[in-house]
Amino acid sequence: MKVGGLLTSAGINIGLCVLFLSLYSILRKQPQNVKVYFGRRIAEEHNRLRDAFILERFVPSPSWIVKSLRCTEDEILDTAGLDAVVFNRIMVFSIRIFSLAAILCVFGVLPLNYFGQDMHHVRIPSASLETFTIGNVQERSRWLWVHCVVLYIISAVACVLLYFEYKHIARLRLCHISRATSNPRHFTVLVQGIPKSTESFSRTVENFFTKYHASSYLSHQVVYKVGKVQKIVSGAKKVYRKFRHSKGTTVDKRCRSITFQCCFCGASSNSFQLLPSDFEQESEKPEMNDSSLSLPDEECGAAFIFFKTRYAALVVAKILQTSNPMRWVTSLAPERDDIYWSNLWLPYKQLWIRHIATLLGSIVFMFLFLMPVTFIQGLTQLEQLQQRFPFLRGILEKKYMTQLITGYLPSVILQIFLYTVPPTMMLFSTLEGPISHSERKKSACCKVLYFTIWNVFFVNVLSGSAISQVIALSSPKDIPMQLARAVPVQATFFTTYVLTSGWASLSSELMQLFGLTWNFIRRYILRMKEEDLLYSFPYHTEVPKVLLFGLLGFTCSVLAPLILPFLLIYFCLGYVVYRNQFLNVYCTKYDTGGLYWPIAHNTTIFSLVLSQIICLGVFGLKESPVASGFTVPLIIFTLLFNQYCRKRHLPLFKTFPAQSLIDMDKEDQQMGRTEDLHDRLHSAYFQFPDTDDIPLEGAHNVGRDENGNGTSGESSRKESADDDPKDDLSHPTLAGLPVSQLRNAVISIGSILRPQRRELPV
Amino acid sequence: MKVGGLLTSAGINIGLCVLFLSLYSILRKQPQNVKVYFGRRIAEEHNRLRDAFILERFVPSPSWIVKSLRCTEDEILDTAGLDAVVFNRIMVFSIRIFSLAAILCVFGVLPLNYFGQDMHHVRIPSASLETFTIGNVQERSRWLWVHCVVLYIISAVACVLLYFEYKHIARLRLCHISRATSNPRHFTVLVQGIPKSTESFSRTVENFFTKYHASSYLSHQVVYKVGKVQKIVSGAKKVYRKFRHSKGTTVDKRCRSITFQCCFCGASSNSFQLLPSDFEQESEKPEMNDSSLSLPDEECGAAFIFFKTRYAALVVAKILQTSNPMRWVTSLAPERDDIYWSNLWLPYKQLWIRHIATLLGSIVFMFLFLMPVTFIQGLTQLEQLQQRFPFLRGILEKKYMTQLITGYLPSVILQIFLYTVPPTMMLFSTLEGPISHSERKKSACCKVLYFTIWNVFFVNVLSGSAISQVIALSSPKDIPMQLARAVPVQATFFTTYVLTSGWASLSSELMQLFGLTWNFIRRYILRMKEEDLLYSFPYHTEVPKVLLFGLLGFTCSVLAPLILPFLLIYFCLGYVVYRNQFLNVYCTKYDTGGLYWPIAHNTTIFSLVLSQIICLGVFGLKESPVASGFTVPLIIFTLLFNQYCRKRHLPLFKTFPAQSLIDMDKEDQQMGRTEDLHDRLHSAYFQFPDTDDIPLEGAHNVGRDENGNGTSGESSRKESADDDPKDDLSHPTLAGLPVSQLRNAVISIGSILRPQRRELPV
Repeated sequence: MKVGGLLTSAGINIGLCVLFLSLYSILRKQPQNVKVYFGRRIAEEHNRLRDAFILERFVPSPSWIVKSLRCTEDEILDTAGLDAVVFNRIMVFSIRIFSLAAILCVFGVLPLNYFGQDMHHVRIPSASLETFTIGNVQERSRWLWVHCVVLYIISAVACVLLYFEYKHIARLRLCHISRATSNPRHFTVLVQGIPKSTESFSRTVENFFTKYHASSYLSHQVVYKVGKVQKIVSGAKKVYRKFRHSKGTTVDKRCRSITFQCCFCGASSNSFQLLPSDFEQESEKPEMNDSSLSLPDEECGAAFIFFKTRYAALVVAKILQTSNPMRWVTSLAPERDDIYWSNLWLPYKQLWIRHIATLLGSIVFMFLFLMPVTFIQGLTQLEQLQQRFPFLRGILEKKYMTQLITGYLPSVILQIFLYTVPPTMMLFSTLEGPISHSERKKSACCKVLYFTIWNVFFVNVLSGSAISQVIALSSPKDIPMQLARAVPVQATFFTTYVLTSGWASLSSELMQLFGLTWNFIRRYILRMKEEDLLYSFPYHTEVPKVLLFGLLGFTCSVLAPLILPFLLIYFCLGYVVYRNQFLNVYCTKYDTGGLYWPIAHNTTIFSLVLSQIICLGVFGLKESPVASGFTVPLIIFTLLFNQYCRKRHLPLFKTFPAQSLIDMDKEDQQMGRTEDLHDRLHSAYFQFPDTDDIPLEGAHNVGRDENGNGTSGESSRKESADDDPKDDLSHPTLAGLPVSQLRNAVISIGSILRPQRRELPV
Repeated sequence: MKVGGLLTSAGINIGLCVLFLSLYSILRKQPQNVKVYFGRRIAEEHNRLRDAFILERFVPSPSWIVKSLRCTEDEILDTAGLDAVVFNRIMVFSIRIFSLAAILCVFGVLPLNYFGQDMHHVRIPSASLETFTIGNVQERSRWLWVHCVVLYIISAVACVLLYFEYKHIARLRLCHISRATSNPRHFTVLVQGIPKSTESFSRTVENFFTKYHASSYLSHQVVYKVGKVQKIVSGAKKVYRKFRHSKGTTVDKRCRSITFQCCFCGASSNSFQLLPSDFEQESEKPEMNDSSLSLPDEECGAAFIFFKTRYAALVVAKILQTSNPMRWVTSLAPERDDIYWSNLWLPYKQLWIRHIATLLGSIVFMFLFLMPVTFIQGLTQLEQLQQRFPFLRGILEKKYMTQLITGYLPSVILQIFLYTVPPTMMLFSTLEGPISHSERKKSACCKVLYFTIWNVFFVNVLSGSAISQVIALSSPKDIPMQLARAVPVQATFFTTYVLTSGWASLSSELMQLFGLTWNFIRRYILRMKEEDLLYSFPYHTEVPKVLLFGLLGFTCSVLAPLILPFLLIYFCLGYVVYRNQFLNVYCTKYDTGGLYWPIAHNTTIFSLVLSQIICLGVFGLKESPVASGFTVPLIIFTLLFNQYCRKRHLPLFKTFPAQSLIDMDKEDQQMGRTEDLHDRLHSAYFQFPDTDDIPLEGAHNVGRDENGNGTSGESSRKESADDDPKDDLSHPTLAGLPVSQLRNAVISIGSILRPQRRELPV
């Protein structure tokens, strides 16, 4: 590929970028798009743009860039959580290191490469891009030490920056914990693998924790099975029960049949409407206590346990409870909104095999994906293309088309294929059985990352140079040499990849093409009523993307520095765009608490070591024993640095330090907040806060009318207000349930009803 | 090699074994050897053999074998600890699985191999051993499924046996914990990396634990530096101080100079004698409080913390304490006798780099060791030997010599080289910085294991077939094929290795050649007085040896079954010999609590998978797609089984379950033992229970006279009995020390003096 081709590609992309950014700055001012571009702010701040027609609305303006740049890290932390800050720090780190790399390499290494051989230089636009890579430097050149020194500087500065970022994020994580004084999460432990016994799970849990953790145990909340099938079954059971116990009475007109709902509308049984309260009261007769119809088997072997102090919860979560490590498995509970309920009732014994199965599944997927990629690689080689599609010969002979195809088309096709990857990996991660949404997304992020690095970097490098060498794993000794031969050659492809995939993906991220289209269709074609478009940030696609560009940057920096300016532009643009999106578009529903940083750190170290190994190979090929000799200690030092970071910072990302939690507990006691916090715990992890599908027999008469008139809700609220919860224990159907659950149910009912009838004191 | 050669080798070894065993049964009855062969029993049971001359003493008898076989597992557990039981279980497992393998392979596989090819069979003694391996089976033979089925049976039975052994040992480990009700270890946590501050470490520790673990903290004991150099320096300081403060008084004649001791005798300053008590009393004047001479800087950043309950200690040990994971690093303390004191004062920050350095060191050692091994391999090839040493040509032409050299000599030389390995690995493990002897031995065991498997198995297999292919790592894809080609060929060498290294090492283990010789020299040549010959069992040499034979057994079983009878004899003999040694010879000073089992389990799984991979390669070479196709799921199932065991049993070997500890704590409370246990804790971890080198300024006048007359001891005992410890706080030199330390010092002094003067009530 010639410089001209690259410039064409760059020109197209710059044009597209400018177009999209201008378009964005106009579209964002249109009132009909406000839900697309300000989803978070509308949802959280409840403000709206004025719907007035002014000319300003149709003039592109860069004000959003200024706003995005002006906001501080604290603002991002407050609005978008710690993960957003971590993502922001990844961008900052990348900008810093690649600014330095760009300066060093463009002004130090690039001229050396260009004048590396005693050759006739053509005009720069028609010079081959290979002239700018290390491939152009003569063997045994005395200038190779410059490459080695630049590699040293980049590695050293990267390590220093990484260290301080790690430290900074660890500190933020600690602050994040210690500031969340009223977070019920810290008091709660999730227990999985509760052994089956003749008693109910709830009783078993209570017995165990009152026996072994009596001083700190507060209460518990058993998890119920709520899979789709389970929902239908329990709904059907209820319907059956109701019909059985209400013989002769007519069914309320508003009550649609559950079967109809499931088959035709596809709606879940959540929207199943309960019968009015008079049926309920009738159905709570003693005969109701039918063992075939009651729902004790819907409890599953998991429960949330609440403790009096944060430290007690941490201790129980981290200590092996019994002599069978597959039972009474404790872990700190995720946030209420973060819980992935339908995975909670998976038997703990299954998890390890699910983990292995999904791992194998993703590996198989990773390698099957090779096929389209190798086909695409074929497209970059014009001769092969002409052979396969002879009818294209005419078109391909035009110079412009050649440049377009070699410089642009392959990455676009690759990009389209890559769009199928995150959903697939998300599916694998769901099957793996994580207990929280954030964990699932983090796991998907890792899978997508490995996938991207393998399929974009390695496959292109190893098969690009010779299309038949797909499996180069068979001889690891030759890999450095093969990489050293291939990376400078493939640098052209990577540069265009940065232009297409990088820049274009930023533009489309900013434009929110999908949201925009969907909003348009809803508004003007389907004419449906407005609804909030709230998504959480897709870390599992964006983190791997940014890290992949980091990897490309590090590996190409010394060998083919021409990629660096484009990459730097990508990171700067990304910095602005992502900050804007965090502030305006995405809503933070859950947060891993900064757990993306260790992934980013490890990937950066991997990138550094990989680029050092490639340089080692290149110096070997160039027969420069001094340069390759000096690269070996660099690799060792980088690995040692990584090991130090693992020892020094990583434990903080795996657990919480006792000191912080004990300090918080003490502060609570001094401030007299403890009681208040304990009271709030009961309702914090209630499984069915806004459904009418509570499988508690003492609480199944609670529901909310879909039309909002709240008739059944009202009656049940009265019931719960009138009845003393303790009296319920004498009721035959409730005798098997512990007090804590009933109390939770009642509190939960109260919390559901409160917004509807604020004038009534509850 | 011919069958005759093998039989020669077997004959020599059987003869030697019978000779050694008979010799042992005579020697063990001689009174002068009683310390060699009954070291443990004499030390622990205080009984002696009658020194009468009876004829029976000189007649070989098998009574010891009967005794060894009769003792139960509980007896071994009581006398030699859990590690001995684990070792015993490894032997039992090996006997069981290789009995089955021997029956299946000798009667099922061996005939198939022998009649595998349509060939003329010579007389069996002159038949080549290769005739009995799978190499003799024709390609595409329809009998290969037998090999595959036998492999399946062996793998499945091995997994089932492994599972039950793991379960059994985990149960034993739990019993071991719960039976040790009065073990101070469970109440004690070792803290490393105490941060430096203006206060003393002792004060810092007290502040930290009274602040954060006030409810369970009992007391603590700071660790002092006692390295060799430190000993000399502190000794010199004391001498200087004494000379400075006792101007004009003469030095006691019995007090030898510290310098003389160190340079000429090489004895440590432990035997440095303190001055009589009148000097001491003088030296405790207020002027003594000289900052350049006092010893606060000898405290190091580690301490033992005692807690009120076992559960509290476990919790503190397992929870990350502060936001800096390199500080306040807690772990459960080892037993008092198990502590490796001189590593305790290593800065915690150093440990990770020491760990990496020793790892690299052992890897380098592992690969440098190749050189003698490859040389030895050359010896097995007679032609090369004749070329290198032409003067041997005459000797080597004799048939007997040829058989001797090819069958016997190489393994003997290898064996001699291998003797240098355990001490080297032990040195590496010491440098690594483990805090206990048992951990050091376990670490050395792992290193020796990796070393042995690599250097005995892989190097022989990979370089034996073609001496030039030393580094075969470069193409992992070909390794199964290469192994498949080489293992059947090398099976002969492994068979002789079992005969020489295995049988002979058992004989020499039983004979205790080193102990016997040393005892003889001491008794009759040096005429020194008797002393106990007490060693702890060398797990770091014996566990790898047994596991290596297991590996050889698994890999050769299906391919070259002729090794199995010899191996089975080895394991049966080993079972008898090691049990005898545990009961009579070795003394258990420290115990890992069964931590050798996970090593054995993992190695066995590795052996199984390796033999399956080799079989896969062999079936591939024999062009049997069915057999090789069926082997792949076997590998996957074996790995899954391993993963399940890791989840199900391994956590129990890394920590203690809370349930057991809490139950024990409750039992203590019910029995009213708690106070008694707490009292005993104070003295349990005192650093200097039997030296006179206590760097506590309030206790440095304690010492024991080498001749046992206890003058200075007596006076100091009086002192400590007269003074109330609390009064000491007003003393200027003692003001900086906490009460707990002084109390510990006084208790320790008491415990030292008690055996000497029992008639005095302390």
